[in-house]
Amino acid sequence: MLKLAVDAMGGDNGSKIVVDAILSYLKEHNDVEFHVVGKQEELKALENKAIIYHADDVMGMEDGALTILRKKETSMNKAVELCANGICDGVISCGSTGAFLTLSTLKVKLIKNVKRAALGTLFPTVDPNKFVLMLDLGASNENTGEQIAQFAEMGQVVYQSLFNKEDVNVYLLSNGSEDKKGCPEGKEAFNILKEKDYPWFKGNMESKFVLNGEADVVATGGYAGNVLLKSIEGTASMMSKLIKKAFRKNLFTKIGYLFAKSGIKDMKKHVDPARGGGAMLIGCNKICVKAHGNSDAVAFKTGIEFTINMIKSHICETLKEKYEQ
Amino acid sequence: MLKLAVDAMGGDNGSKIVVDAILSYLKEHNDVEFHVVGKQEELKALENKAIIYHADDVMGMEDGALTILRKKETSMNKAVELCANGICDGVISCGSTGAFLTLSTLKVKLIKNVKRAALGTLFPTVDPNKFVLMLDLGASNENTGEQIAQFAEMGQVVYQSLFNKEDVNVYLLSNGSEDKKGCPEGKEAFNILKEKDYPWFKGNMESKFVLNGEADVVATGGYAGNVLLKSIEGTASMMSKLIKKAFRKNLFTKIGYLFAKSGIKDMKKHVDPARGGGAMLIGCNKICVKAHGNSDAVAFKTGIEFTINMIKSHICETLKEKYEQ
Repeated sequence: MLKLAVDAMGGDNGSKIVVDAILSYLKEHNDVEFHVVGKQEELKALENKAIIYHADDVMGMEDGALTILRKKETSMNKAVELCANGICDGVISCGSTGAFLTLSTLKVKLIKNVKRAALGTLFPTVDPNKFVLMLDLGASNENTGEQIAQFAEMGQVVYQSLFNKEDVNVYLLSNGSEDKKGCPEGKEAFNILKEKDYPWFKGNMESKFVLNGEADVVATGGYAGNVLLKSIEGTASMMSKLIKKAFRKNLFTKIGYLFAKSGIKDMKKHVDPARGGGAMLIGCNKICVKAHGNSDAVAFKTGIEFTINMIKSHICETLKEKYEQ
Repeated sequence: MLKLAVDAMGGDNGSKIVVDAILSYLKEHNDVEFHVVGKQEELKALENKAIIYHADDVMGMEDGALTILRKKETSMNKAVELCANGICDGVISCGSTGAFLTLSTLKVKLIKNVKRAALGTLFPTVDPNKFVLMLDLGASNENTGEQIAQFAEMGQVVYQSLFNKEDVNVYLLSNGSEDKKGCPEGKEAFNILKEKDYPWFKGNMESKFVLNGEADVVATGGYAGNVLLKSIEGTASMMSKLIKKAFRKNLFTKIGYLFAKSGIKDMKKHVDPARGGGAMLIGCNKICVKAHGNSDAVAFKTGIEFTINMIKSHICETLKEKYEQ
């Protein structure tokens, strides 16, 4: 049976949504043993259904690296350690991203010969049946061309394993589609991938086309990836506000909403970032997933399913095979 | 009277939209002398209304720097030269961005002590009455901290001059709002601006918040700026497609559209990038504006108005005063 470590604290909505998500998962499946870390009194509903570890302390959103390492009694630290010391096969948390990255990288550790871990996420595209994997979205704020080229390689493995797809298309994010485009480290990554002559490497892609359903994987350095991720979020949020405003304009538009509601709901569901399951730290020895801080029980359950999917796809094993030799 | 050089060729929709835009402008104003460069036979409608210069050749979208400089008979080259040699006060083109940047920088030249020109554009925000100026959006693909800090300075001047606003808020694009966040050159720019103790410098901003109406100016290096600009465009385009799809779902949603139409049209207008007027190359001795390649007559007219606004705001003069001493 798979063993999943769960950090029950640190999210915006408290441990209740974590408990509800696990209970809902267990109603439908019996393939996972949950190891849940949090305040015992808040986890009572999980008694006899999961293994519970008490933790009093929560990682703060602004904690620096030293504080993070010093706070041994946090639910996040204990959950990551369950994964690091081999008890669990993966870990999920909706706490601070920075702390989760630090702990996962330092305790679960990078796969041998992996230069940097990358934060990746599956994003909905125009095509309702297709996700695009983008990485690195901000585990680093500076990367070499070699690192970015490896992000592309790891992205290809992850996408192929997750979706069982033979011919994965991998692009490098750039400021144009031509071969010579890019920032200096992007150009370096381009040359490395070209030289290795990977059939899956399709060249450069502008951020404008990342969501149009063509690319399976888009690799980039962490700083530009962060700008990409968050400007997608910001623009989607602005558009949602404007759609709401459009329907509230007058009586007619309000009636229009009543008629159009089912279509609008489909759209909301289509672009819901929770569908992607969360952000995964790619390149570590175990599956480490960071769910959205504001996850509700439904989103966190998607995160759990996603994490389990990642474990079952043997992504870490495939990456180890590739790099450890 | 202001003198504006217009490149009539190179846009996706030919010179007709340029002619129509100028005619429409002249119907309402008589403050500008247009110097229009293009195929004489296509500019007949402007006879006696504008000064016409014949040019046969068009700059190609893929032309490299050397080709660009060699193609002397292009409408773009001639239009930029009208500006460079002092005949006109500004120039506008909807041709190739790369060629326009090269020609403007090399012929109109940078203001003394300006390290790099930046491509800036006004973007609609959630607030219908407010634009945000973002720069550099891709004139460079690599920048130093010093250059980025100067982009922030120039952005402040441009915004203040254009909108007559005393207390302009300027932010640096970053991967977090904390002072220590950023890519290495971003951190360097942050320190330079902090040291100069500018009252308008408000710190770092994530790309997520760029469109929320808080910032007047967001400065960044050209590579990240390009990722930012184009992911906003890509996401907005995806959302527009999904809204269309939502309304086409079934008979009810189609009826819903009929009722909600006026609100949706307002929204489209609100986010129309043409409202921003085009991209301006900031830091040159004259006003150089690049209109969208796919501009129609309405968008190009907005571009003309925007360029004239820029000239009337004495932006170049203010920048020269600031830097030439």
